[in-house]
Amino acid sequence: MARPVALFTGPWTDLSLEELVQKAAEWGFQGLELCCWGDHFEVQRALTEDSYCQKKLDLLARHDLTLLVLANHRVGQAVCDPVDERHQSLLPDYVWGDGDPEEVQQRAAEEMMATMRAAQKLGVAVVSGFSGSSIWSYVAGYPAPDQAVVERGFQDFAQKWNPILDVCRDCSVKFAYEVHPGEIAFDLYSAEMALEALGGREEFGFTFDASHLHWQGVDPVEFLRRFPDRIYHVHVKDAALTLNGRSGLLNSYLPHGDPRRGWHHRAPGHGGIDWEAIIRALNDIGYEGPLTVEWQDSGIDRDYGAEEACKFVKRLDFEPAKGEF
Amino acid sequence: MARPVALFTGPWTDLSLEELVQKAAEWGFQGLELCCWGDHFEVQRALTEDSYCQKKLDLLARHDLTLLVLANHRVGQAVCDPVDERHQSLLPDYVWGDGDPEEVQQRAAEEMMATMRAAQKLGVAVVSGFSGSSIWSYVAGYPAPDQAVVERGFQDFAQKWNPILDVCRDCSVKFAYEVHPGEIAFDLYSAEMALEALGGREEFGFTFDASHLHWQGVDPVEFLRRFPDRIYHVHVKDAALTLNGRSGLLNSYLPHGDPRRGWHHRAPGHGGIDWEAIIRALNDIGYEGPLTVEWQDSGIDRDYGAEEACKFVKRLDFEPAKGEF
Amino acid sequence: MARPVALFTGPWTDLSLEELVQKAAEWGFQGLELCCWGDHFEVQRALTEDSYCQKKLDLLARHDLTLLVLANHRVGQAVCDPVDERHQSLLPDYVWGDGDPEEVQQRAAEEMMATMRAAQKLGVAVVSGFSGSSIWSYVAGYPAPDQAVVERGFQDFAQKWNPILDVCRDCSVKFAYEVHPGEIAFDLYSAEMALEALGGREEFGFTFDASHLHWQGVDPVEFLRRFPDRIYHVHVKDAALTLNGRSGLLNSYLPHGDPRRGWHHRAPGHGGIDWEAIIRALNDIGYEGPLTVEWQDSGIDRDYGAEEACKFVKRLDFEPAKGEF
Amino acid sequence: MARPVALFTGPWTDLSLEELVQKAAEWGFQGLELCCWGDHFEVQRALTEDSYCQKKLDLLARHDLTLLVLANHRVGQAVCDPVDERHQSLLPDYVWGDGDPEEVQQRAAEEMMATMRAAQKLGVAVVSGFSGSSIWSYVAGYPAPDQAVVERGFQDFAQKWNPILDVCRDCSVKFAYEVHPGEIAFDLYSAEMALEALGGREEFGFTFDASHLHWQGVDPVEFLRRFPDRIYHVHVKDAALTLNGRSGLLNSYLPHGDPRRGWHHRAPGHGGIDWEAIIRALNDIGYEGPLTVEWQDSGIDRDYGAEEACKFVKRLDFEPAKGEF
Amino acid sequence: MARPVALFTGPWTDLSLEELVQKAAEWGFQGLELCCWGDHFEVQRALTEDSYCQKKLDLLARHDLTLLVLANHRVGQAVCDPVDERHQSLLPDYVWGDGDPEEVQQRAAEEMMATMRAAQKLGVAVVSGFSGSSIWSYVAGYPAPDQAVVERGFQDFAQKWNPILDVCRDCSVKFAYEVHPGEIAFDLYSAEMALEALGGREEFGFTFDASHLHWQGVDPVEFLRRFPDRIYHVHVKDAALTLNGRSGLLNSYLPHGDPRRGWHHRAPGHGGIDWEAIIRALNDIGYEGPLTVEWQDSGIDRDYGAEEACKFVKRLDFEPAKGEF
Amino acid sequence: MARPVALFTGPWTDLSLEELVQKAAEWGFQGLELCCWGDHFEVQRALTEDSYCQKKLDLLARHDLTLLVLANHRVGQAVCDPVDERHQSLLPDYVWGDGDPEEVQQRAAEEMMATMRAAQKLGVAVVSGFSGSSIWSYVAGYPAPDQAVVERGFQDFAQKWNPILDVCRDCSVKFAYEVHPGEIAFDLYSAEMALEALGGREEFGFTFDASHLHWQGVDPVEFLRRFPDRIYHVHVKDAALTLNGRSGLLNSYLPHGDPRRGWHHRAPGHGGIDWEAIIRALNDIGYEGPLTVEWQDSGIDRDYGAEEACKFVKRLDFEPAKGEF
Repeated sequence: MARPVALFTGPWTDLSLEELVQKAAEWGFQGLELCCWGDHFEVQRALTEDSYCQKKLDLLARHDLTLLVLANHRVGQAVCDPVDERHQSLLPDYVWGDGDPEEVQQRAAEEMMATMRAAQKLGVAVVSGFSGSSIWSYVAGYPAPDQAVVERGFQDFAQKWNPILDVCRDCSVKFAYEVHPGEIAFDLYSAEMALEALGGREEFGFTFDASHLHWQGVDPVEFLRRFPDRIYHVHVKDAALTLNGRSGLLNSYLPHGDPRRGWHHRAPGHGGIDWEAIIRALNDIGYEGPLTVEWQDSGIDRDYGAEEACKFVKRLDFEPAKGEF
Repeated sequence: MARPVALFTGPWTDLSLEELVQKAAEWGFQGLELCCWGDHFEVQRALTEDSYCQKKLDLLARHDLTLLVLANHRVGQAVCDPVDERHQSLLPDYVWGDGDPEEVQQRAAEEMMATMRAAQKLGVAVVSGFSGSSIWSYVAGYPAPDQAVVERGFQDFAQKWNPILDVCRDCSVKFAYEVHPGEIAFDLYSAEMALEALGGREEFGFTFDASHLHWQGVDPVEFLRRFPDRIYHVHVKDAALTLNGRSGLLNSYLPHGDPRRGWHHRAPGHGGIDWEAIIRALNDIGYEGPLTVEWQDSGIDRDYGAEEACKFVKRLDFEPAKGEF
Repeated sequence: MARPVALFTGPWTDLSLEELVQKAAEWGFQGLELCCWGDHFEVQRALTEDSYCQKKLDLLARHDLTLLVLANHRVGQAVCDPVDERHQSLLPDYVWGDGDPEEVQQRAAEEMMATMRAAQKLGVAVVSGFSGSSIWSYVAGYPAPDQAVVERGFQDFAQKWNPILDVCRDCSVKFAYEVHPGEIAFDLYSAEMALEALGGREEFGFTFDASHLHWQGVDPVEFLRRFPDRIYHVHVKDAALTLNGRSGLLNSYLPHGDPRRGWHHRAPGHGGIDWEAIIRALNDIGYEGPLTVEWQDSGIDRDYGAEEACKFVKRLDFEPAKGEF
Repeated sequence: MARPVALFTGPWTDLSLEELVQKAAEWGFQGLELCCWGDHFEVQRALTEDSYCQKKLDLLARHDLTLLVLANHRVGQAVCDPVDERHQSLLPDYVWGDGDPEEVQQRAAEEMMATMRAAQKLGVAVVSGFSGSSIWSYVAGYPAPDQAVVERGFQDFAQKWNPILDVCRDCSVKFAYEVHPGEIAFDLYSAEMALEALGGREEFGFTFDASHLHWQGVDPVEFLRRFPDRIYHVHVKDAALTLNGRSGLLNSYLPHGDPRRGWHHRAPGHGGIDWEAIIRALNDIGYEGPLTVEWQDSGIDRDYGAEEACKFVKRLDFEPAKGEF
Repeated sequence: MARPVALFTGPWTDLSLEELVQKAAEWGFQGLELCCWGDHFEVQRALTEDSYCQKKLDLLARHDLTLLVLANHRVGQAVCDPVDERHQSLLPDYVWGDGDPEEVQQRAAEEMMATMRAAQKLGVAVVSGFSGSSIWSYVAGYPAPDQAVVERGFQDFAQKWNPILDVCRDCSVKFAYEVHPGEIAFDLYSAEMALEALGGREEFGFTFDASHLHWQGVDPVEFLRRFPDRIYHVHVKDAALTLNGRSGLLNSYLPHGDPRRGWHHRAPGHGGIDWEAIIRALNDIGYEGPLTVEWQDSGIDRDYGAEEACKFVKRLDFEPAKGEF
Repeated sequence: MARPVALFTGPWTDLSLEELVQKAAEWGFQGLELCCWGDHFEVQRALTEDSYCQKKLDLLARHDLTLLVLANHRVGQAVCDPVDERHQSLLPDYVWGDGDPEEVQQRAAEEMMATMRAAQKLGVAVVSGFSGSSIWSYVAGYPAPDQAVVERGFQDFAQKWNPILDVCRDCSVKFAYEVHPGEIAFDLYSAEMALEALGGREEFGFTFDASHLHWQGVDPVEFLRRFPDRIYHVHVKDAALTLNGRSGLLNSYLPHGDPRRGWHHRAPGHGGIDWEAIIRALNDIGYEGPLTVEWQDSGIDRDYGAEEACKFVKRLDFEPAKGEF
C-alpha cells in the first residue's frame, strides 16, 4: 500500500537531527516522527523563533523526508504521573523547575498545549505521546484498588487532558495517545475506559503499538477491530516472549537485554508479532497514515537495524485487493 | 504424605473465629493459618492479656485443629509501601493513626515485631506475610527505573525488615514471606534479589503460592528447585488464564470475577496449575510443613469451596516413595 | 447449584417410556426432556385423549421425575428442509403422508404448532427442537451462494417459523432452538442471523449444546456471553477431536464411531469441552434451567454411561459465589 | 526442481486471454492452466473451428508460455450436483438451456466429454475439474445419511463419470479431479471412496490443492503419501485459520474476506500451510508436473499478488538431492 | 469392561510371593502377571518338582487371584544381547554360569523354552518378556549402521527366537513380546520389522506398554490400530515428559527420579498418556485380556500407589457400547 | 557480525579438495572446516611431507578461503568406542590395521595426537571431533546401567583423552568436542559430566551443533548459556521433527530421508531450530569464531543447498548492538 514508512527519531537523540536525517534518508525512510527532546525539536524555540519550524522542514525536505508526526511522550508522561526522580531526566529544565510534583504536572500540561501549537505551526496533523497515570502503581499489585479509586484515576486523567485536547481542537491537531504500560490506558479495556472518560471526543485517538499489547496477551488485531476509527498513528515495533520457567512477564526489574527477562522489545520481524494479520486489519479499517519504525532492540546495532526495519516494513505492506472476485 | 492440611482464615474474618473454627473442622481441615485481623487474632491483646493466646489455642484444640502459621500480610504491606488511602482499611486504627506515611511505616514495622513475639507466645514457628515495596510502581511501566533506583528499593527493604527479622531470630520464629505482585519480591529473580539484600539470613524464607507465579509465566516448580531450603510455608491456591485476544494479563483495573480479565484466582484444581508436579517437587525438597488452602474464587461459594478444596488437597498429597526400587 | 439434572429420552425410544423412567430415576436423574417419538410422547394423542398428558405426568411423578422440556427435533427438521428419503423415518406417518416435499413441510409446521399446544397442556414451559434449513447444502461447498441466496434462506426460515412462534406466544411456551449443523443456525454468527431474521422475538431462544460448537472451533463460552438472555435450555454432551493428519473435520461420510473420523460425540467428560468454563459462564448469565444429558457416545454402553453422566453433571455443577469477598 | 510454474487463469476471466497472457509472462510464469470460461477457452469453438486451438497455442507461444492443463471446473460441477439457481451463472447458455436439473446434468456430462476431446486437440495431457455431488448436502448436517445413502451417492458419481473417463481413455487425457468441499471427494477418506467407486481406473487422479485440506484438519502431506501415483496436478494456494472463539470453521455463510470467518483462502505463503513439507513429499513421490498458482486472497491485489506468488513458488521449489550421502 | 485387572509382581520380588499375594488381593487386584525371579516363580523347580506349580496356583486361589501371565523379561534379554556385567544380576546363577557371552545367550534361550513349558504346566496361555538385541547400541548414535547391518540384527533375532517360538507352538503358549527401548523392537516400525523377520508367525505378538512409546513421540493408539490382532497383553504404566530446555529425552545417564531427566515413568494417571483413547482403541480391536499394572514411579510409595492404580484402572475401563444407536 | 562463514568439507570428500575449494569460494564461503579424510587432509603426510601443509594453505588462499578448523571426527570416534565392523570404513588403513578393538583404540588415540600436531603446523587453533564412548549402548535401553558403570565410562573417557589433550596444550590447540548422540557427551548434563571428568581443563571445549540437541528436546540456547566460555566452534545445521503418531524419535533404524522417521537433519532454515535466539545468545556470550555450515539434508541437492546455506547464514548473522540505549 502507499502508506509512508517513517522513523521515530527518539533512539538517535544523541545525534543532531541533521546527522540523523541523512542516515534516515539513506536507509530508505520516507518520513519522520520527530521527537521533542535532544535538539531534534524544541517546542519553546518553535513557538518563539520565527524561522525555527521552517528550518526543520527545510532540513527534512532536502533529504526528501516528510514530517508526519510530532512526538512528545516524555513531557506528556508528567501530566498525570506522581512525579519523582525518574522524571527529571525526561523533562526540559524549565518544565522540571524545582521538581515540586504538582507544579511539574501543571507545567507539563502547559508544555503539551505548546506542543500542539507547534505542531500546527509545522503543519503536522498528529501529535503522539503518553499521558502518565495517577493509578499505574495499583496495576497487578496489592492492595488492589476498589473501583472508586480507579474511577478517580480516570477522572484525574480527563480533567488534566481535556484542556490540552481543547487546544488540539483549536489547532486542528489530533492526539495519538500511545497505549502503553505505565499510562492510564495500557490494554484494550483500559483504552475503552480512557476514551469513555473523555466522552469519546474526536481529538483523541491512539498510536497503535502492537509490541506493548503482545506480551500482555492482548491480540493487536482485536484492538484494531475494536477502535477502527481511532487509529491515528501506527508504530512498528516487535516483542518476543522468552519465558522458560524461570523468567516472568513482570521482568524482575531487569534491564532491557538481560536474558533473564520474560519478554523483550525486538526489531520488526525479530519477535512474535503476526504482522500479516496486522496489515490485513489495517487495510480493513482503512488506515492510511504512516507506518513508523520505533526502533528498540538491545541485541542489534541500531543503524544496521533501522535499515533492515525500513526494508521489512516496505516488504510487509502489500497491496490490498481492489474489489472482491 | 503426612503434611497437615490447613485453612487460611482471612476470607472468613467477617465471621468470629469461633464460628469459623467449627466449620473448618467439619470441612476436614487439620490446622489453621490464623490471620491477624478481624477478631481472629489481635496482636496487642495477645501480648498484653494473659490468657488471650491460651484461649485461642484451646478453642482450636476443642475442634482438633492445630495452629500452624500466624499471618499478618496487611500490616507487613505498610512497612515498605508508600502509604496511601488504600492502606487505611487494612490496618488497625492504632497503626494507621493519622495516616502520615512515614509514621505509619514505622508503626507497621513495630507491629510486625509484636507479631513475631505473639507467635512465640502461641508456640507458632512460622509467621507469614507481605513486605510492601517502595518500587512496585516501577514494574512494567514508564519511565523504567535505572538500576540504581532498583537497588535503593532493595536496600530500603533490607533496612526496614532487618530489625524485624532480628526479633524473629530472638523469638525463634521464621518469616515466610509471600512472593506476590505488589511486594519487593514477586517472581523468581526478584526473590533472589530480596534474599541477597538480606544477606541470606535464615529467619527469612518464602510462603510459596503458585498462583501468583503462574499467570506471570513463571513455572512454580522452578521456584521450588531454586530455593529448596527456603520454602517455609505453602499456599494452595490456583489461577486460570482466560486470554481471548481482548483480555490482557494486566487486567485493565477490572475487579476479580469480571469475565473481561485475562486471569483469575481459582479454587484448587479449578485453574491451570500442575499440582502433580508441585507435590513431587515438594517431596523432592523435603518440605514437611502445612499445605494451606488460601481460598479465593469469585465463582464458587466459599463454604462449598473450602470443603471441596480440603478434599482436593488430601487426595493430591500422595505418599512419596520410601526408597528407590 | 440447584439446577435439575435431566435426561433426554431420545436414545432410549426403543424402550417404553415406563421402562426408561424407572432406569432414569435409578441413575439419579431429576427430570426429563421428553421426546415426541417412539411411545415417549405422541403429540396428537396428547391433544385428543383426555387423560394422556396427565398419565405421562403421573408416571414421571411416581419416580420423582419432573417433566422439564418437551423435544420435537425430528418434526421441526422437516419444516424448512428440502425433504427427501432421509426424513421419512424421522416423521410420524401422518406427517410424512405421500412424501411430497412441500406438503410434508406444511404438515410438519402444523405438527410443531400442535407440539406447542401439547406442551401447554403438560404445563411445560420450554419446547426444544430443530428447524431444518433450505440452504444448509450451501455451507462450505461449491458453488458458494451469493449473499442474496443466503438472505432468502433466512427469510424462508422466518416465514415458516413465525406462525409457529405465534402459537408459542399464545401458549406461553418458549422455543429453545438447538444450534446444530444441518440447521439454519449452526454457529455464533448464523445464530445472530437467525435471531435477527425473527426480529429478536422473545419466544425464540436457544438450546445450548457445546458439542456442536466445539468441533467447529467456536468457543462455547463466547456463545453464552453473546446471547446471555436467550439460553432457554442446556444440553450436556461432549465432543472429541481426533485429527491425526488423515482424518478431517468433515468426516468423509463415515458413521459415528468409525476411528477414521476427525471428531466424535462423546459422553460428558470424555471429550475436549471445558465444562468448568461453561458452568462459570452459566452462573454469570444466571441460567437456572435444567442441565440435560443428551447421551451419544458410540464407545460406551448407554446405560452405564447415562448413570456416569448423571454423576458427572452433579459433581460439575458447583455452587456459585453468593457475593464478592 | 525443474517443475514449471503455471497460472490458473480463472480469476482473470474478466480480461481477455490476450491481456492476461501478457501479464502472466511479465510476472514470470512459464505456463497456464487454461480455464474453459470467459473467452479464455471455448470448448465448442475448439471442436468446430479449425484454427481455434492453434491460435490459442500461438498466442501463448508468443509469450513463451506453455499450455499445461485445461480446466473445466464449472461444467463438471453440474454433472452430479442437484442443479439449482447457483449453477446458471457457471454454465454456458447451451449447457444450462431451460435449467431442467436432469437435463442440465446430461448436457454437462456431454460438455465434459467435449472438453476431453478439445484437450486432445490442444495436445494437453491433463484436464482438471470438479464433479459435483448428489450427497454433499448430507455432510456434517442432520439428519445423517445412513451408509446405503452414501453408497448410492458414490454409485451415482461412478455411473455419471465413467462414460466421461472412457472418453479420456480414448483421447489419452487424464482427469485431475480437484478434491474440494462441495464435491463427492473432499478429504482423504472420501477420495479413497471415489477412487474405489471407479475401480481405480487410471484416467482418474487428483488435482492436489492443500488449501482445501488444511482448514478441515487434514495434513496435505498425508494425502500425497496416500495417493503417490494419482497426483496428476498440483495447485498452490494457501489458507489461514482465524479461529478466535467466535468464528467457526463452517463460516456462517459469510463471504470471503469477512473477518468473522474462521478460515480464509490466502496467497501462497500468507497462510498456515507447510510448503516445505509439501515440496519434500512431492519430491519423494516423483511428481514432475506443474505447480499452478490458483490465486485467491481477498486482502491482496490480484496482480501484485500473482507476481509475488510466482516468485514464491520458484524460491520454494528447491533442488532435490540426487543421491544419498 | 470385564477385563481383569492384574498386577506385575516384579517390583515386589524383595517380598515373598505369599506376602505380595495378600497385599494384591487387599488392593483389589483380580490376577497376577507372575515374574520368574526372586521366589515368585522359579522355572526349573516348576519343571522338576511335582507340586510346585499347583502350590503357586493354590496360593493365588486362596486370595481369589487368577494367574494370567507368566513374565520372564530378564532371561529373555540375554538371548540376543551382547552379554556384559549388567546381565549377571538379572540372571539365575545357572544361566549366568561363567558369564561367557555366547554360552549365556545359549543357556538363556534354553531357559526361555523351559519358561514356555512351565507356563503350559501352570495352564497360562501367555508368556511376556524381552528379547535383547545385537544392534541396540546402533540406535540414535554414531556411526549409523548401514541397512545390511540392521538386517543382520533382525536375522539374528529371528534365528535365536524361532526355536523358542516353536516350543510356544508346541505348548499352545503365546509370547507377548514387550516393545521397549533396548529390545530389537522399540517403536512402531521396528515392531513391524520384528514381526516380518519372524514371518508373522502366530505365537508372536506384543505386550502393549504405552509408556515406552509415549516419550519417543509414538502415539500408542496408532500402535494398537496397526497391530489389532497381535496385542496379546497390555501393561498399564504411565510416563511424563519433563522437558524444560535443559533436560533431554536421552536422560544424560541420570537415574530414575532425578529431576534433571527429560522423562519419567509414572503411576497410571500421573503422566501424559491419553488412557481414554487407549481404552476406546482396545475396545475397537476387541482386546479381552488383562490390564496389568506395571508399577514404576520413583515419587510415590509403591504400596500406596499399587492400590491407587488398581482403582484407577477399574474406573478407567468403561463398558463399551453394545450396538450402534 | 563479522564472524566468518565456513564450510565443513566432509560431505564432499568424494571430490578432490581442489574441486571443492573452487565451489566453496563461488558459493560465498569465507573459510573451511577441513576434514581429515578423503584427500582433503591427510594427517601423516602433513607431519612427514615438508610442503604438504603449505600447499593446502596456498590452495585455499588462491580462493580467498581461510582455514579455520581442522576436523577429525572419524578417528576420534574410535578412541573410546567398542570398535566393530562399522568403524573400518571410517578409519585410515594404518589405524584400522587388523581391527583388534583395543589396538585400534590405541592407534586412534595416537592419530588424534598427530592431528593436534598437524593443526599446529597448519597454524589452526581449533580441532573439532568426536570421542566415541564405552557406554553409549546403555543410553535409553535395558538393562539400565547403575551409576558405578556410568562413572567408569566417564573415567575411561578421561583416561584416554587426557594424553591427547596434553598434546593440545603443548601445541596451543583447542579441542572443540562435538556434543552428539553416540558420544560420551550428547546432551547438556552429560556435557557437564564430561567436562567434570576432565577437571575442566582449558584445552577442552565444545563444537556447538544445535541440531543434535533439538530433537532430544534440549534447548540449544540453554546449552550456550550453561557453557559460555567453552564454545570453541559452532556448526550450523538444522533438524526437523516429523512426529505423526507412528514415527518415533528413535527412528526405527530407518536411514536418513525415509519419511517414516520421527526427525531429520535439515539444511539451515529448513528445520525447527530458532536461529534468531541462537545468534542472540552467541552475541551475548561473545563468541567470535566461525559459523560453519555442516551440510546434511537428504531432500535437497548438496550444491544447491550449500550456496543457499551460505546466504542464509550471512543474512542471519546480524550486527549486535554496540551499547545500551
